[in-house]
Amino acid sequence: MELRVIGSVSSPLTDPAAAPKQGDEGAPEAVLEIAAEFAPGLKDISAGEDVLVLTWLDRADRDVLAVHPRDDATRPETGVFATRSADRPNPIGLHRVRVLDVEGRRLRVDALEAVDGTPVLDLKPVLEAVGER
Amino acid sequence: MELRVIGSVSSPLTDPAAAPKQGDEGAPEAVLEIAAEFAPGLKDISAGEDVLVLTWLDRADRDVLAVHPRDDATRPETGVFATRSADRPNPIGLHRVRVLDVEGRRLRVDALEAVDGTPVLDLKPVLEAVGER
Repeated sequence: MELRVIGSVSSPLTDPAAAPKQGDEGAPEAVLEIAAEFAPGLKDISAGEDVLVLTWLDRADRDVLAVHPRDDATRPETGVFATRSADRPNPIGLHRVRVLDVEGRRLRVDALEAVDGTPVLDLKPVLEAVGER
Repeated sequence: MELRVIGSVSSPLTDPAAAPKQGDEGAPEAVLEIAAEFAPGLKDISAGEDVLVLTWLDRADRDVLAVHPRDDATRPETGVFATRSADRPNPIGLHRVRVLDVEGRRLRVDALEAVDGTPVLDLKPVLEAVGER
């Protein structure tokens, strides 16, 4: 069960400690640069769509099972699976973004809290209502 | 970048071809059995909550980059990242479920389309509104 890196995040964010905790907390625009070998998988993604981006949060501590949510020491320690902490056994980041434009293998997205260089694992469409699938 | 299996799905579904494509398309209840070493991460997950389950769809074809959506040959071939196909470079399943009850390391959930034995990688809470994080 080895992951394949399909691309990486290009972002003005470089310091994880200073990055917003979620995209909707002031995260900047970013570009997803997809590797040439995986580019055929991007066909049919267009500007204006909302997509889920899965990343590998490679600076995370994979041995942590409890954290103070949002790094707030006044909040009680909570099991990692009940939080969005990056520290967890499989540090897979899940980010909902809007695609602003697609230029070949580069997708510009509206707001992403992942730092520059974060590996991208997958993209998925947001599911529509049952009848529209 | 190697994944750790934190648990597995226990489900009456055994045939992937017969399984619903999404949880809200008639999928049965299932139990997530979390391994003892990761059980401390479950603390603070309770019945009634909606969670995102990440699984590893281990029967997927990882070399596929385009599919006919929903296995419907009349629909044009589409890039896998614009679909929810299990076949994709990193076959990570993403499932939104409601927790029905928690009994030690066993979480019963309302509707999951993953087949029996599917490895579980992660659980995450559904994000609340910004002010309630």
